[in-house]
Amino acid sequence: MASHHPIPASVPPTPVTVIGLGAMGRALAKALLKAGHPTTVWNRSPGKADELVALGATAATTAEEAVRAGELIIVCVVDYDASQAILDPLADVLKGRVLVNLTSDLPARARQAAHWAEERSIAYLDGAVMVPTHMVGSADALLFYSGSRESFDRFEPVLKALGEKTEFVGGDPGFAAGYDLSLLDFFYGSISGLIHGFALAKAEGIKAVDIAPYLHSITAILPAMIEGSASEIDTGSYPGTEANLAMMAASVDHIRHASQARGLDVSLLESIKSVADRAIERGHGADDWASTYEAVIKPE
Amino acid sequence: MASHHPIPASVPPTPVTVIGLGAMGRALAKALLKAGHPTTVWNRSPGKADELVALGATAATTAEEAVRAGELIIVCVVDYDASQAILDPLADVLKGRVLVNLTSDLPARARQAAHWAEERSIAYLDGAVMVPTHMVGSADALLFYSGSRESFDRFEPVLKALGEKTEFVGGDPGFAAGYDLSLLDFFYGSISGLIHGFALAKAEGIKAVDIAPYLHSITAILPAMIEGSASEIDTGSYPGTEANLAMMAASVDHIRHASQARGLDVSLLESIKSVADRAIERGHGADDWASTYEAVIKPE
Ligand SMILES: NC(=O)c1ccc[n+]([C@@H]2O[C@H](COP(=O)([O-])OP(=O)(O)OC[C@H]3O[C@@H](n4cnc5c(N)ncnc54)[C@H](OP(=O)(O)O)[C@@H]3O)[C@@H](O)[C@H]2O)c1
Ligand SMILES: NC(=O)c1ccc[n+]([C@@H]2O[C@H](COP(=O)([O-])OP(=O)(O)OC[C@H]3O[C@@H](n4cnc5c(N)ncnc54)[C@H](OP(=O)(O)O)[C@@H]3O)[C@@H](O)[C@H]2O)c1
Repeated sequence: MASHHPIPASVPPTPVTVIGLGAMGRALAKALLKAGHPTTVWNRSPGKADELVALGATAATTAEEAVRAGELIIVCVVDYDASQAILDPLADVLKGRVLVNLTSDLPARARQAAHWAEERSIAYLDGAVMVPTHMVGSADALLFYSGSRESFDRFEPVLKALGEKTEFVGGDPGFAAGYDLSLLDFFYGSISGLIHGFALAKAEGIKAVDIAPYLHSITAILPAMIEGSASEIDTGSYPGTEANLAMMAASVDHIRHASQARGLDVSLLESIKSVADRAIERGHGADDWASTYEAVIKPE
Repeated sequence: MASHHPIPASVPPTPVTVIGLGAMGRALAKALLKAGHPTTVWNRSPGKADELVALGATAATTAEEAVRAGELIIVCVVDYDASQAILDPLADVLKGRVLVNLTSDLPARARQAAHWAEERSIAYLDGAVMVPTHMVGSADALLFYSGSRESFDRFEPVLKALGEKTEFVGGDPGFAAGYDLSLLDFFYGSISGLIHGFALAKAEGIKAVDIAPYLHSITAILPAMIEGSASEIDTGSYPGTEANLAMMAASVDHIRHASQARGLDVSLLESIKSVADRAIERGHGADDWASTYEAVIKPE
């Protein structure tokens, strides 16, 4: 089955184990099989391995048997309570192997898991899958890893089977989850503003497809905001050269009024306004938007 | 003074009046002068015309005198209370001329102003300047116009002096303001999520400049979200093919938890979550994110 996607000569077939065969676990296993790695799989409840076995996977009957079959052990279940429930009894078998946890959870949980692994001499990498299942294994698939740099370097060629954009972001095992959540934070703010913008347009009688072409002009200015804000936040200096926070807060209030006049939900705009107002109260009225960071980190 | 920027042969010099010489009014007048149009200016309080006169503008001593000098009358003041205060006494002089109001305000105020103008046989265009003052007159400057299509067609070549991206968005005079506010709505949601994402990263010990390169991967997926959501919202059908709202709401809650654990302001995430939850309650759990539109337009 792997004949159409032979792995490059430089990546020797590596025995890999995938624990957890939900939507994501199955996608990970498929990508490994496609890359020609001998793949052993296990899931708490039965039946989920069938499709993978047809593609060449070996189904283990116990988690322990699955771990014994792999050099690289990938776990992807619903959360860290679930992954610890599976891994706790397997510490002895995991020793000497490399454990990669691709389950999503809080950075603190990733750090706990790393600590647990370290105490048991298990090499540990924590990871985050940043793409939906159908993109796993593609050139555009982004995955973050953090924790054991040595383990990452050793298995990077194998991990690349899961996504071409395989990024090691730091020795702190909480960083992969931290990167994950921060990107999603930006994502949900953006798409919430987007849908609210559409709602306001529609309320004014404007078709969403008519305004869509112009919304791209907003997307086009975000890269400069990302770069500018990043260095300002790291240095704690927010020169309001172009637009200042006082003017922008008034503009937010304007949108809030217009939305309220049309009976729309205004909680998003109220939150944005209150954060901006708090930054202004703290002396950032003449600074730029990135200074709202100071109000986000100190809510009271 | 216009010799370095001659207007194309196809745009005959047109007498234009600019009323309101705040930061934006001055930028507009400068762009018109640069394009070679005879420009007359007026401002409530004196002194603001000096720089423009040095560039070739004529300073009128009264608003009426200013209006008499122009075929095209551009007004740009703080809000519509201010513009009506100036225009109300000038209805007779404005008759037969084209009035363009570039003041920002609610769509409803633009419609009122258009109604006022129509009753007095004044051709009316309402506009919105989407760029900061230093970009006025450039190839990237976006300005929306709505209202009298005839007036727009007649003066489009002149209005292009204010920005190459000169867009007529509809006969409803409230549309320019509607487009303006909707774009800003998307903008403020995005940059609020961005700064919150940076705050969460920093709270986890990640430098903003380290995560910035990856935030561009979020920007990169927004164009598809814009296009996909637009047609879904117009048709009222939100098939959750890729990701569903229930999963995404859980993800938002995850970010909220992580943020709360770090003592960050979570009002933005609470708003996003509550809107998503309301859409789920209304049966959109298996639909995609655009279905939150249904909760935005019906808050209760
Ligand atoms: N799906 C995506 O697009 C996507 C994208 C990025 C990240 N992720 C992340 O990937 C992880 C897995 O997601 P998924 O989509 O695969 O979820 P899913 O389809 O709901 O599968 C959940 C998996 O967790 C297992 N599980 C739950 N509780 C367990 C327990 N107590 N003990 C052992 N196993 C347990 C389930 O086993 P049973 O079959 O026995 O219930 C199943 O294998 C999640 O952290 C998710 O956030 C998913
Ligand atoms: N600046 C920007 O980057 C920008 C970008 C896009 C859109 N806009 C919009 O452009 C418009 C003007 O902005 P701006 O930056 O030029 O503002 P500004 O610098 O604060 O100037 C305000 C102008 O309004 C006049 N004004 C205020 N109250 C008045 C009244 N009751 N009667 C007569 N005139 C009155 C002021 O005259 P006095 O000098 O006599 O006070 C001044 O000319 C606003 O609607 C703004 O939202 C601005």
